[in-house]
Amino acid sequence: MTMRFFATPQDAEAAFYDALERADLEALMAIWAEDEEVTCTHPGGERLAGFAAVREGWRQVFAGLQRVSVRVTDPVHRQGILLALHSLHEHYSVPGEEAARPPVIASNVYVRGAQGWHLLSRHASGAPVAVSADVSATLH
Amino acid sequence: MTMRFFATPQDAEAAFYDALERADLEALMAIWAEDEEVTCTHPGGERLAGFAAVREGWRQVFAGLQRVSVRVTDPVHRQGILLALHSLHEHYSVPGEEAARPPVIASNVYVRGAQGWHLLSRHASGAPVAVSADVSATLH
Repeated sequence: MTMRFFATPQDAEAAFYDALERADLEALMAIWAEDEEVTCTHPGGERLAGFAAVREGWRQVFAGLQRVSVRVTDPVHRQGILLALHSLHEHYSVPGEEAARPPVIASNVYVRGAQGWHLLSRHASGAPVAVSADVSATLH
Repeated sequence: MTMRFFATPQDAEAAFYDALERADLEALMAIWAEDEEVTCTHPGGERLAGFAAVREGWRQVFAGLQRVSVRVTDPVHRQGILLALHSLHEHYSVPGEEAARPPVIASNVYVRGAQGWHLLSRHASGAPVAVSADVSATLH
């Protein structure tokens, strides 16, 4: 496994979505920090912790995945010195599907190391189908 | 609205769960950064962005909430200079309920400012219901 160098979190993010669209596991894992503290939560899934578990999770995702294209909207970025947070909406398009899927909400945290910026944590969850202002029942 | 001073993300986190258990909206919002870039995603919910929207979301949560107690496990912390990430599992207990609920996965990002550390982003989603070996055996 060779980590790629990314000068900015934005560079790492662009590579992430490129690898995702190509379902390229090696390219995708080269974006993650090689770190036992990486965590990844796929929509509806448990939290995967550690590089090996995160890799196996993505292997399973790609094994079942149709080719998709991803469009990102509504970015909220906060850049620190060692960490950066990118919150955004991901819109997945699957060839042959006419109806738009609800977006996925993603919180991606990048960490800066000797090899530049890499993904430290990803938390993704499906947005509700019908967006409602009522969140009173959603805590549990 | 008066922000409280928190010397560390851990201090802010302890105050967060204390306010959550007491369903104290003012105490809870005093933990958030007063910032248009705050975001909060409740389990199953849309992403709320901006202090006012986050506050309104918590107001609705508390309006519908039974009193709960929260136990936090499996912390994965990464401390930066201006940002800190706390990934963890939250276990909610509701008086009168015997069965344990599946945990909530939370990614809480704190930001350091003139008033110390405050919550910048919270992303929470329900972990899948664990299928025990006994249950899975009955499915086949």
